[in-house]
Amino acid sequence: MAKKEEKRQEKKQEMRHEMRRSPGVDPKETLGITVLKEKDSAEWYGQVCLKAELADYAPVKGCMIIRPRGYNIWETIQSEFDKRIKKLGVKNAYFPLFIPETFFEKEKSHAQGFAPEVAWIANKYEGERIAVRPTSETVICDSFKRWVRSHRDLPMRINQWCNVVRWETEATKLFLRTREFLWQEGHCVYSTEEECEKEVLMFLDEYEKLLKDVLAIPIIKGKKTEQEKFAGAKNTYTMESFMPDGKALQSGTSHNLGQGFMKSFGVSFVGEDEKPHIPYSASWGISTRLIGALVMLHSDNKGLVLPPKVCANKIVIVPIVFEKSKKEILEYAKKVRHLVSDYHPLFDDRDEHTPGFKYSEWELKGIPLRIEVGPKDFEKNQVVIVRRDTGEKEFVMFDKIQERVPAILEKMHHDLYSKALQHLKNSVKEGGTWEDFTNIIADAKLAKMPHCLDMKCEEAVKTKTAGVTSRCIPFENNKLNAKKCFACSQDAKAMVLFGRSY
Amino acid sequence: MAKKEEKRQEKKQEMRHEMRRSPGVDPKETLGITVLKEKDSAEWYGQVCLKAELADYAPVKGCMIIRPRGYNIWETIQSEFDKRIKKLGVKNAYFPLFIPETFFEKEKSHAQGFAPEVAWIANKYEGERIAVRPTSETVICDSFKRWVRSHRDLPMRINQWCNVVRWETEATKLFLRTREFLWQEGHCVYSTEEECEKEVLMFLDEYEKLLKDVLAIPIIKGKKTEQEKFAGAKNTYTMESFMPDGKALQSGTSHNLGQGFMKSFGVSFVGEDEKPHIPYSASWGISTRLIGALVMLHSDNKGLVLPPKVCANKIVIVPIVFEKSKKEILEYAKKVRHLVSDYHPLFDDRDEHTPGFKYSEWELKGIPLRIEVGPKDFEKNQVVIVRRDTGEKEFVMFDKIQERVPAILEKMHHDLYSKALQHLKNSVKEGGTWEDFTNIIADAKLAKMPHCLDMKCEEAVKTKTAGVTSRCIPFENNKLNAKKCFACSQDAKAMVLFGRSY
Repeated sequence: MAKKEEKRQEKKQEMRHEMRRSPGVDPKETLGITVLKEKDSAEWYGQVCLKAELADYAPVKGCMIIRPRGYNIWETIQSEFDKRIKKLGVKNAYFPLFIPETFFEKEKSHAQGFAPEVAWIANKYEGERIAVRPTSETVICDSFKRWVRSHRDLPMRINQWCNVVRWETEATKLFLRTREFLWQEGHCVYSTEEECEKEVLMFLDEYEKLLKDVLAIPIIKGKKTEQEKFAGAKNTYTMESFMPDGKALQSGTSHNLGQGFMKSFGVSFVGEDEKPHIPYSASWGISTRLIGALVMLHSDNKGLVLPPKVCANKIVIVPIVFEKSKKEILEYAKKVRHLVSDYHPLFDDRDEHTPGFKYSEWELKGIPLRIEVGPKDFEKNQVVIVRRDTGEKEFVMFDKIQERVPAILEKMHHDLYSKALQHLKNSVKEGGTWEDFTNIIADAKLAKMPHCLDMKCEEAVKTKTAGVTSRCIPFENNKLNAKKCFACSQDAKAMVLFGRSY
Repeated sequence: MAKKEEKRQEKKQEMRHEMRRSPGVDPKETLGITVLKEKDSAEWYGQVCLKAELADYAPVKGCMIIRPRGYNIWETIQSEFDKRIKKLGVKNAYFPLFIPETFFEKEKSHAQGFAPEVAWIANKYEGERIAVRPTSETVICDSFKRWVRSHRDLPMRINQWCNVVRWETEATKLFLRTREFLWQEGHCVYSTEEECEKEVLMFLDEYEKLLKDVLAIPIIKGKKTEQEKFAGAKNTYTMESFMPDGKALQSGTSHNLGQGFMKSFGVSFVGEDEKPHIPYSASWGISTRLIGALVMLHSDNKGLVLPPKVCANKIVIVPIVFEKSKKEILEYAKKVRHLVSDYHPLFDDRDEHTPGFKYSEWELKGIPLRIEVGPKDFEKNQVVIVRRDTGEKEFVMFDKIQERVPAILEKMHHDLYSKALQHLKNSVKEGGTWEDFTNIIADAKLAKMPHCLDMKCEEAVKTKTAGVTSRCIPFENNKLNAKKCFACSQDAKAMVLFGRSY
């Protein structure tokens, strides 16, 4: 019975709000997303980023402007992750934007890997060319040479939050592929190979936790193949997320660099045995690309949907006022605001817009909860709380608000994660043959295939399919389901995940 | 009598510590600063930055590496100031590193002012040259054109924390003048001139508070002359600090840009009168240069001295152990560590170094308080607390530690500020004639002189004196003390502060 009454109330309230709309103005037309996510995912994505005011195109092609609503997400990622790594003994520093060309040449495979993407300074040569950093292994290893002396200095764990530049020639996409992006790059030195490998995996686990706990993004962890690993690494580990449009997104990587960079840059330390040794190094990074993953994964045809933890304003309060009850309603709504002040609520009492217009605007901009406060709510000492992701409405008595708000936010985070996890699980299909593979890829899923791990074979797959690449050799459930490589029929060595990607 | 006993104890303790030193090793020689601040300020400054591990020279000339101990100071400045400006309605964003050449040309005086210092990208032209940002007025104003529509959008207050590049040709100096540095740049748009000017001064006041409350740096506020103002500004306001070597340091500026940039970039808004208007804009910034000011101002011949608020580790605990009492002392010292854990104490129980060596090392590195815990202290249930800046020792009973530590830290901040303020006050000398002026400058002080405010006159002063420039027209005590300009004998318009500067 109570439910029926609720439904009735809901219906009434909806009608009331509809009536308050400005005649002839459909807010969805003026503000909203004009294409469907299912139909044109690329256009939909661009519109969400622009219209939710997360980002803007920059005057220099391929760069972006991160607007306050987008930058705030990055600030949350920064502060959350920074706290975690500081507890693990990582110290922040800042290394220069500019790197001498000779530094790249010291590690040959690294230089080759980054050569096509490096931007160089034109007018300021002083003997040699100067690169704008695409990543900082070289300049940081050069510092390690001076800073690492004794086994007592190890492990040394350094991190920087900065901008990097990779001059992409492929089409760029806000957050997901831009010529300049923001990231953190961790760089660590260890005395033993075991410790190095252990922490490379530890930082990957930290990324996984961050993505699960804060961003509600599930991932598949694994090792990159020789073909796809970082230029100069011994092993690259990755976490891959999977987007609703059928593309994988490399969401963070952790590299075991072995002794390669240490040898190239002449880093050594005096061990407990008082003899010189060459240490092992590692690097790991996540970037503003994660903001793109958030948008792509959780948002819908009304606009942005975000897990509450990355939102500065977790609530918008919309008082529904009529002339005669205006004062009471506003007063009541302000009491509600006071109750939920920990969640930095927006208070939308603009006179020039209808409630319907406001709902659409805040849905577009991804505020997790809307609290509606109308005359009936005031009379009954209640409010209506509406979840952004599901649209579920809940009538909550005034004295239960402080209890319900965190519970609903928690539930929302949990549901977003579960939904994405289900999608990820449904998207991985095992196959054994080339035919299986093409079918799975045509179905916009990730193909888990027995593979020979030969670089040439992988390159051939990429060419034949116009861009399908190996994403990783997953850590979990990696039992070979066939003896032969699906692509070249040589002996299979591992199950490898293949897919299209950003 | 108590004092006498204290002195005796102090003497004994000192002797005890001295005795524990490794024979033949003078820690000051191996670690310490080898020149005097009074004798060779430039060399002393470089040594403090390097040996206290604040910074390192970068492979590309004129750039620097900010090491964890230095970067931590910047993180404190960031978090303190960020909190303050967010309360004032400022929102953080991120704009691209790269700016098209045509953008500079839109504001002619701005382009001229920055032309010699701009670094350009070599291999990535796409129709026009691309600059590495020396400052972001142009690219941000271009965004304001799209973001500012109505009077309801104003004031709009945006800030970014980022790196900028100014290719200095003069000799560079860690923190104080480097080709790349980190800073914040605030950019605001207002509907009225009054509001703009008011907030330009408000942000200058915020800087002043930050410098006083957190960095213990006193400053003189004032207006820049036409000659020295920011390229493209209507008015530039500045805060100037004064270093012990007789040079002024521009420590932060706030620019009223009038309507210049708004007009050049075509920004307009619809007012309450429903007509289009041109808004007013402002920008303001502080940089990692402030770290240089901290070092220069507070440090001494033993090394780094920092106001406690910028130190991650405010205390170092040095247990003084002898074999037979080692266990008790370490246990007692750990209890002390537990008591002061809020101050993130370092705990130096290294076996390989003597207490004397440790004292020198932590003095060099600028830890504000040292807590010595020796056998006598253990017996008497006390500790010795030593202030880094004055070397003052205080015997504190165990149960008074939690009370004394914050009090001593507070006093230390206060004393550092007072000392610097006294120095600043003593350094400003008024004069009326060219002879006064040259005497004051020769004495390495700031000359407060009646001036005509003519740009050519100022330029002539600079040339004649090989580099003395006007620092500002001070806000306070600006009563003309002569009718004629000290330099050209035209009518004087204001008292202007002149000096050498970084």
